Amino acid sequence: MIEHSTFYDKLQLQWQQGKFVCVGLDSEYSRLPESVRRPRGHRRDISQSILRFNAEIVDATKKYVCAYKPNTAFYEAHGELGLRTLRETIRHIHAVAAGVPVILDAKRADIGNTNKGYVHMAFDLLEADAITVHPYLGRESLEPFLERADKGIIVLCRTSNQGAGEFQDLVVDADPLYINVAKRVASGWNSNGNCALVVGATYPEELRRVRELVADMPILIPGVGAQGGDLERTVSAGKDSNDAGMIINSSRGIIFASSGADFAQAAYEETRRLHTLINEYRGRKEPKY
Amino acid sequence: MIEHSTFYDKLQLQWQQGKFVCVGLDSEYSRLPESVRRPRGHRRDISQSILRFNAEIVDATKKYVCAYKPNTAFYEAHGELGLRTLRETIRHIHAVAAGVPVILDAKRADIGNTNKGYVHMAFDLLEADAITVHPYLGRESLEPFLERADKGIIVLCRTSNQGAGEFQDLVVDADPLYINVAKRVASGWNSNGNCALVVGATYPEELRRVRELVADMPILIPGVGAQGGDLERTVSAGKDSNDAGMIINSSRGIIFASSGADFAQAAYEETRRLHTLINEYRGRKEPKY
Repeated sequence: MIEHSTFYDKLQLQWQQGKFVCVGLDSEYSRLPESVRRPRGHRRDISQSILRFNAEIVDATKKYVCAYKPNTAFYEAHGELGLRTLRETIRHIHAVAAGVPVILDAKRADIGNTNKGYVHMAFDLLEADAITVHPYLGRESLEPFLERADKGIIVLCRTSNQGAGEFQDLVVDADPLYINVAKRVASGWNSNGNCALVVGATYPEELRRVRELVADMPILIPGVGAQGGDLERTVSAGKDSNDAGMIINSSRGIIFASSGADFAQAAYEETRRLHTLINEYRGRKEPKY
Repeated sequence: MIEHSTFYDKLQLQWQQGKFVCVGLDSEYSRLPESVRRPRGHRRDISQSILRFNAEIVDATKKYVCAYKPNTAFYEAHGELGLRTLRETIRHIHAVAAGVPVILDAKRADIGNTNKGYVHMAFDLLEADAITVHPYLGRESLEPFLERADKGIIVLCRTSNQGAGEFQDLVVDADPLYINVAKRVASGWNSNGNCALVVGATYPEELRRVRELVADMPILIPGVGAQGGDLERTVSAGKDSNDAGMIINSSRGIIFASSGADFAQAAYEETRRLHTLINEYRGRKEPKY
């Protein structure tokens, strides 16, 4: 009954098979290989090209991933057709990679009931298994997300961007703000056991501090690959007591590994390379479970 | 050349005419009056009903408003058709209320270049004049928004929800976090003069503190009406040295003022009532300009 298992259940199943790579489907049209770009460049063609690209990436990489993570910005940039492309991409993942959860990287958060629109969009229309959210409005505002016990609610904690520290490093009660976020999510917010955090691979020391605070809560770790995060330090800092707990995302590093017609093969090889290295750095060839 | 004036220019023109009410188009289908709801309830009918409702609200209220503010959550809840409804709603506003700016209440924010997708969606596809954004990722991440000097970038500062204080009130260097946000947006972020802040009417003392820090920067003030913010205290706390600077939003209080077939007339009357009271509380019948 894969369809009714929770985000966390699905993740656990992947981790038990030693899978920790998340493929970020940041499928920016202008960067797609010539071979999938339709010659005319009409909006419908663009949408079809992105869907075909995503499907080939998914088909090629599904053996080694714990999750897929499309970022809504790249789809909303194409309006209604983009949204349809996103929906069809997720549907394709569920069809060919059953049990692999889809994280909608939407970075949403509004006040209370308004969030119900986003909850419906992400989980009912798009059929995602998890969503990323901003913490700034507090737990009370996020209840419509948090009450969906079957879905993953992944809260931005320490983001991977260069200027992340502007607010996230401000010191509150002797701890930086992102540590306050991590503590609150791990304690008060997680009564349904469906919370996770985003901590960038570009900040391994911060990742280590967060891991120490949140036990085995899943951490989505973007920033390896194109953003330059060090994989060995990331795994060392990010793994939980089962040498698991990590969703290690690479987007451009995988999907644009080749700009040629061999893009899917190149994506497969890069995914497998990360998969192998992660398991080497975890210090075990076989899963502990 | 209304089409080429900036968000700030458009706002100033409205303020000079004594207009400070922003109508929030939170047009939740289940709350629309029977008279605009199509009997069959098919998705296309739902979309048409929402568009018709919005158009009637806009036509009825346009004389007394400084801005319209559709919240994306209520449209994304209907998928591709909802996005089209949003686009057509904004197009209708530009057609019948030329010069009245449209604020896309999207509460977005991702890392750097990813934001370009949202910028394109909001400003090029949907033709909004301004967008609301989360501050948590810092200025550096928001550059794709901030560099759009013609558009308004409205940063969440002190939100109107009950639990807003969880992070926003945490004390950093003797000031709550939201004051840190206000100070940074007013100083470092605003080099293009296109920034504004969100401060809820439900927190008039916080609004006063922010106004003291940001001179005549526009403040979007949600929370009067259904959320219960006190209008007189709001105007007293929110006005700048020209007794202006405010975008005072009411959503449900205006658009659902009546649940009957007279909803547009009721919306008109509630908008005019707020308009009259705001100008009374500003302490001037005629604009100062």
